[in-house]
Amino acid sequence: MSDVLFDILRKVTTATITTMLLKKGIRRCWMNGPKPLSASGERIVGRAFTLRFVPVREDVATIESWGSAISTRAAIEEMPAGSIAVADATGVPTAGIFGDILCARMKKRSVAALVTDGAVRDRAGVLMSALPVWCAGVASPASVNGLTFVGWQQPIGCGGCAIFPGDVIVADDDGAVIIPQALVEFVAKEGAEHELYESWVFSEVENGVKLPGLYPPNEDARARYEIWRKSRP
Amino acid sequence: MSDVLFDILRKVTTATITTMLLKKGIRRCWMNGPKPLSASGERIVGRAFTLRFVPVREDVATIESWGSAISTRAAIEEMPAGSIAVADATGVPTAGIFGDILCARMKKRSVAALVTDGAVRDRAGVLMSALPVWCAGVASPASVNGLTFVGWQQPIGCGGCAIFPGDVIVADDDGAVIIPQALVEFVAKEGAEHELYESWVFSEVENGVKLPGLYPPNEDARARYEIWRKSRP
Amino acid sequence: MSDVLFDILRKVTTATITTMLLKKGIRRCWMNGPKPLSASGERIVGRAFTLRFVPVREDVATIESWGSAISTRAAIEEMPAGSIAVADATGVPTAGIFGDILCARMKKRSVAALVTDGAVRDRAGVLMSALPVWCAGVASPASVNGLTFVGWQQPIGCGGCAIFPGDVIVADDDGAVIIPQALVEFVAKEGAEHELYESWVFSEVENGVKLPGLYPPNEDARARYEIWRKSRP
Amino acid sequence: MSDVLFDILRKVTTATITTMLLKKGIRRCWMNGPKPLSASGERIVGRAFTLRFVPVREDVATIESWGSAISTRAAIEEMPAGSIAVADATGVPTAGIFGDILCARMKKRSVAALVTDGAVRDRAGVLMSALPVWCAGVASPASVNGLTFVGWQQPIGCGGCAIFPGDVIVADDDGAVIIPQALVEFVAKEGAEHELYESWVFSEVENGVKLPGLYPPNEDARARYEIWRKSRP
Amino acid sequence: MSDVLFDILRKVTTATITTMLLKKGIRRCWMNGPKPLSASGERIVGRAFTLRFVPVREDVATIESWGSAISTRAAIEEMPAGSIAVADATGVPTAGIFGDILCARMKKRSVAALVTDGAVRDRAGVLMSALPVWCAGVASPASVNGLTFVGWQQPIGCGGCAIFPGDVIVADDDGAVIIPQALVEFVAKEGAEHELYESWVFSEVENGVKLPGLYPPNEDARARYEIWRKSRP
Amino acid sequence: MSDVLFDILRKVTTATITTMLLKKGIRRCWMNGPKPLSASGERIVGRAFTLRFVPVREDVATIESWGSAISTRAAIEEMPAGSIAVADATGVPTAGIFGDILCARMKKRSVAALVTDGAVRDRAGVLMSALPVWCAGVASPASVNGLTFVGWQQPIGCGGCAIFPGDVIVADDDGAVIIPQALVEFVAKEGAEHELYESWVFSEVENGVKLPGLYPPNEDARARYEIWRKSRP
Repeated sequence: MSDVLFDILRKVTTATITTMLLKKGIRRCWMNGPKPLSASGERIVGRAFTLRFVPVREDVATIESWGSAISTRAAIEEMPAGSIAVADATGVPTAGIFGDILCARMKKRSVAALVTDGAVRDRAGVLMSALPVWCAGVASPASVNGLTFVGWQQPIGCGGCAIFPGDVIVADDDGAVIIPQALVEFVAKEGAEHELYESWVFSEVENGVKLPGLYPPNEDARARYEIWRKSRP
Repeated sequence: MSDVLFDILRKVTTATITTMLLKKGIRRCWMNGPKPLSASGERIVGRAFTLRFVPVREDVATIESWGSAISTRAAIEEMPAGSIAVADATGVPTAGIFGDILCARMKKRSVAALVTDGAVRDRAGVLMSALPVWCAGVASPASVNGLTFVGWQQPIGCGGCAIFPGDVIVADDDGAVIIPQALVEFVAKEGAEHELYESWVFSEVENGVKLPGLYPPNEDARARYEIWRKSRP
Repeated sequence: MSDVLFDILRKVTTATITTMLLKKGIRRCWMNGPKPLSASGERIVGRAFTLRFVPVREDVATIESWGSAISTRAAIEEMPAGSIAVADATGVPTAGIFGDILCARMKKRSVAALVTDGAVRDRAGVLMSALPVWCAGVASPASVNGLTFVGWQQPIGCGGCAIFPGDVIVADDDGAVIIPQALVEFVAKEGAEHELYESWVFSEVENGVKLPGLYPPNEDARARYEIWRKSRP
Repeated sequence: MSDVLFDILRKVTTATITTMLLKKGIRRCWMNGPKPLSASGERIVGRAFTLRFVPVREDVATIESWGSAISTRAAIEEMPAGSIAVADATGVPTAGIFGDILCARMKKRSVAALVTDGAVRDRAGVLMSALPVWCAGVASPASVNGLTFVGWQQPIGCGGCAIFPGDVIVADDDGAVIIPQALVEFVAKEGAEHELYESWVFSEVENGVKLPGLYPPNEDARARYEIWRKSRP
Repeated sequence: MSDVLFDILRKVTTATITTMLLKKGIRRCWMNGPKPLSASGERIVGRAFTLRFVPVREDVATIESWGSAISTRAAIEEMPAGSIAVADATGVPTAGIFGDILCARMKKRSVAALVTDGAVRDRAGVLMSALPVWCAGVASPASVNGLTFVGWQQPIGCGGCAIFPGDVIVADDDGAVIIPQALVEFVAKEGAEHELYESWVFSEVENGVKLPGLYPPNEDARARYEIWRKSRP
Repeated sequence: MSDVLFDILRKVTTATITTMLLKKGIRRCWMNGPKPLSASGERIVGRAFTLRFVPVREDVATIESWGSAISTRAAIEEMPAGSIAVADATGVPTAGIFGDILCARMKKRSVAALVTDGAVRDRAGVLMSALPVWCAGVASPASVNGLTFVGWQQPIGCGGCAIFPGDVIVADDDGAVIIPQALVEFVAKEGAEHELYESWVFSEVENGVKLPGLYPPNEDARARYEIWRKSRP
C-alpha cells in the first residue's frame, strides 16, 4: 500500500500537504530549519529513520567516540533502503553532523535523503555524494565539536516538529514536512485531489478570473470546477 | 512628477538611497529581512500598498477565513497597478503568506512586486508567476498556520522599518528600502548625482588612486571631479 | 617557511583543519557567520589583518567620519599584500561595512580576501570587484548607519572566535577558520596527511566498505591504508 | 452577565484558563513576554483596549509627536474604566512605552492594568503609580526612541497572540492570557469547576496518593471526587 | 562514598565547581537557562533523573496523553528519593512543564529538586509546594500546549549541556552545573580545597592586598597561604 | 566642574537623560543588557573605565592567563576612584566575568560600580562585596570559560552602545546610559529642568488634569507651569 501512496505523495507539494494536515488540526508539521542544500526541484518521500544528538560534553564528544558502538557510523548501517535520515541536532549551527564520507556511505546504502535542523560539513563533498540533503547550514567543524551523538530510532524534535520513527517525511524546495503514520492515506488522497483543484484555479487566474469567489470557491466556481473535473480523462 | 522621479530612482542603488536618507537623519530605512527570492539584478520602484498580519489564533485563522471579506484575496483586488505590496508578517518564518496562485493574480493585476519580512510558499510556483518577490524565506505552511490577516493600507512595520501607505519602496539585490513621501525628490536628485560621483571614484580606484582624500574627497579631488563632471555630455 | 605551509593549506579543507585543531583541544576556530558571498570552490589562505567596529553612536558614526584618521579607508592602506582582512562587525546585520569601492581598492592592493561577521553592501558591485568575500549577509546601509569604526590590528572577535593579528585564516565554501600562529605547521602537515587518508576512505566507501572499522580505522583498515599509502608515488 | 463571569474568572488561575482553551483547540492564548513588573499575587480581569506601535522612523517618531492627535496621550483618554490596555510594542526591548506620568493618568482613569510585550520606563515611578503592569522589561528611553505609535482599538499581536478589541484578558503571576469573547462563559464556568477538582487533587497528593489514576482520574478517583464534590456546601 | 562527597559538595559553590571542571578540560557544565525560581541561598546536590520532551504535535500532545503510560506522572513515580529531576524542555518558554500538583507529588516522594531549561506553571502553587526549582521562566500553559513528553532516564540536553542519568547535579543561586560521574571525587576534594584558598584570598583583599600576585598566587603568596593553611585546625 | 554636574546628574533619572540626548539626535545611549543585580533605588554617576573581552579561544583563555600582564586583575589596579568599570563581554551569558574577589578589590579601590552586558559569578559573594553591579545575568563559570580578556581603556561596545574611555555613565533601576563627554553639561542642566517640569506634571495628573495639552504643554499649560516654576524658592 505505502508504495502506491508514496507515488502519489511524490506529486503533492509540501505546501498542499500542510494544508491537508491543517484540516486535521495539525499545524506543527513543517520543520523550521532544514532547507535544500541544493534546490533541485525534486521531491523525496520516505519513512523517517531518526538520529539524536545532545550538546557537546568534552569528556564524551571526542574524535575517539566515532569508533564507539553508539556512533553515527553504526546508525547508518541500520538505515533501511529508501528511508530518510532525520537528525535532531538541537539546531546547533556550529558543527557539521555529516560530511562527504558519511553521506557517500548513506547513498551507497540507498538512503533516500538526510534531513536535519543542524549543519553538514564539506559542502562540496556532500554535493558530490549525490545524497539529497536538507539542512540548516554548512559548518566546517565535526559533530563532536558541538554535539554528542546518543542514539537512533527514538522520538526526536527537528525544526520545531516531533518526529517518531516510521513517520512519513516529504521534502521539496519548500523544505521538509512530517506526516503522522495514521494520516498518510488521507493526506495522499486529499492532497492529490487538492492539487488538481489548484491547477484548475491557476488556469482560471491565467484567464483573468479574480480570487474572491474562486479560491476558496463559491457555488458557481465549484460547479464550473466539477464540470472541468469530470471532463478530465 | 513621480514618474520622472521613479525613472531616476530605478538607476540609484538602494545603497546610495540609504546614504542620502542618512543625510536627513534617517537610519531606519532598510528592511532587515526581505531578500530577493531570486537575485536578478533588477531594481523595482513603486508605492507601498501595505498588508497587515498578526499572530495566528486558532479560532480565527482558519482555511475558511480565506473566503472572508478581510482576506488577502480581497486585498489583492485593491492593489493599484505598479504598486508594491509590503506585508508585515511580524517576521514569522513558519508560514508562507502567499503562494503561486496569489502571486499569479498579483502579476495579472500589474502589481510591481511583493516585499515581506515573512515567508512565501511554493517556491517553484512563485518563481514561475514571474512576480518579483523579496521575502525572508520559504515555508510550506499557509499563512493561517501561523498568522491572522487583519487588513490593508494601514501603517505597518516590516523588517524593523515603519511603512505608511504611499511611501516609496525601492528594492534591488541588496534588499528593500523605504523613502518617506516628503523625501522622494531629494533622494532621487541627490542620489543620481551621488551615483555619478561614485562612478568617477570607481574609475579613479581602477587607476590606482588611494581612498583617503578621494572618498570623501579633499579639495584637490573635488576639483578634479568637477572638471570630469563638466566634461560629461 | 610560511609560503610552503600556505601552499599545503590551500589543499586542506577547513573541515579537516578543524579536526586537526580539535586534536589540540581547540573547538572555537570556525567563525559562525561569514559565508562565501559567492561559492566558488576556491580556498584562500592568508594572515589576518583585523578591523574593529563598535555599535553606532550618532555623534561619532557620521558620513564625515569617513574622512577621519581612524577610518576604514586608512586601514585599507595598511593592509599587506596577501593578507586577509577580518572585520569584527559585532554581528550587526543592518549595515554593510564595505561596498564596491572599498573592495575594489583592497583588490588593487592585493588583499587576498575579506572575512566578516557583518554584512557588505552593493552586492553586485562587490562581486564585480573580484575580491573574495565571506560575510554574514548583504545590507544597503553604510557602516555608519549601524557601526562605529574604531581601529585595526587589535585582537577581535569574529563569529564567536578570537582573532589576533597575524593568525592564519583559511576560508572555503564551508566558511572561514582561524589557526593560531603556533599551530600552523602542525595543522598543515597533519592536515595534508589526513586528507590523504580521507581520500582513501572515500574510495573504500565507493567500493562498498562500511564505515565501522574503516573510519576511524581498526587494525586491519590501518594496515590496508599503510600499504596504499606506501604505494603512492 | 460579564460582571458575574469576571468575578468567577478572578478566582481561576491563568494556568487553568489555558487548559480550558486547549479543550477548544486554542493553544495560542498566553502572551510570551509580559511578566508582572511586581509579582503581587493579584489576578486582574478586564476587556482589552488595544494600542499599536510600529518601529521607529526618525521623521515621525519625535518628541513633538507626543502632542499629535494620534498619540498615547489621546489613546488613554479613550480607555473605559476597568479595561486593560494591551500594547503591541513589537517586542522592542529598548524603548519604554509608558512611564510614571502616563501610568498615573491611566490609574486616575480607573484603567485596570497595562499589558505589553515591550518595556516601561522609570520603574520606580511606575510602581509608585500603583497601576498593575505586565511588561517584558524596563528601559530608560522613551517610546519614540524605538517605536512609532499608530493607533488604538485595532487588532494587534502581543507576545505571539492575536488580540482583538473587546477580548477578555486575565493576568496573574504566571503572565497574561487572552480569552476570545465567544468563549468567556465556557472558560469561566468550566474553569471554576476545574479549580475545584484540582484543589481536591492537591489534598489527595498531600495525603500521599500517587498521580497516575488520580490526575487525570480513573473511574475510582472520579467516583471519590464526585462524593467529595457533593459533600461541599 | 557518595554521601560524604555530596556533603562536601554542598559547601562548594557552583562557581568553584566549574573552575575545577575546567582543569579537566570541561567547559560545558553550567546550564544556560535554569535559574532559581526563588533565590534562597541554598545549595542542592543530587543525582540526575532525566526527563525528555520533544516539540508539540497536535495529535499526540493532548490532555488525554497525561493518562498514558509514558507520562510525566508515571516518570515521577520512578524518581529515587534525593534525586534531582532534570528536564529537557528544548528551551521552550511558552509551556509550563510542571505545576503545583506535580511538584507537590515530587516533594512528597523526597525528590531533591527540579531543574529545567523550560518553564513551570502556577508560580504561586509551585513555590507553596516547597520543591526547590531551577527553571527558565514561568508560563501559564500546560506542557502539552508546546511539548510532547517522550520518556525518562535517557541522555538529554539541558541548557546547552549533555546530561546522562546518574550524573551529579549541583544547583545554587548561580544556577545548576553537571559533574560527570567519573569526576565527582576530584571536583569535591579539589573544590573544597579551592574554597579554602579563596576564603584566604578574600580576607587578604579585605586587608588591602592587591590581586596581581595574590590570585593566582606568586611564590610569596603561596608561602603565606601555606602557613595560614597549616595554622587552621 | 564635573563634580557639580555629577551631583546634578545624581538627581536626574536615566529616563530623562535619554530624552535630553534624543534632543541632540542620540538614540543609542541606553545599554540593552545591564540590569541592576539588586534594585536599590540608588543612582550612580561616574566616568567610564572600559574593559574589553573577545570570545574564548582554548589556547589563550586559560586559568593561567589570570596571572598575565593583560588580565582583569591588572586592569582593576588602573581604575581611578569614582570610575565606573564598563565591560564589553560581547553579550556572552555563559561566563561570569567577575566574582566576589574581584568585586571586593574594586570596592576597596573605591570604584563606583561595574556595568556589563555579560554575567557575574557567585551572586551571593558579589552582593556581599557591596559593589553596585549592573549586569545581564549570573553564571557560575569563570570568564575564561567563554571569554578572552584583551585590554582596557579602549573604545568598546556594551549593550548596543559605543562607549569611549571618559564618557559619563549614569545607572539606576532602569539600567545604564552613556553621555558623550561633550554633552554632559547640556544633559545635566536641561535634565534637571525637565525633572522639575515632570514633577509639576505629575502633581497636575494627581489633580485630575488630562495629558493632552499638558504633556507636552500647550500655551495655557506652559503659562501655568511658569507661574509655578517662579513660585518655587
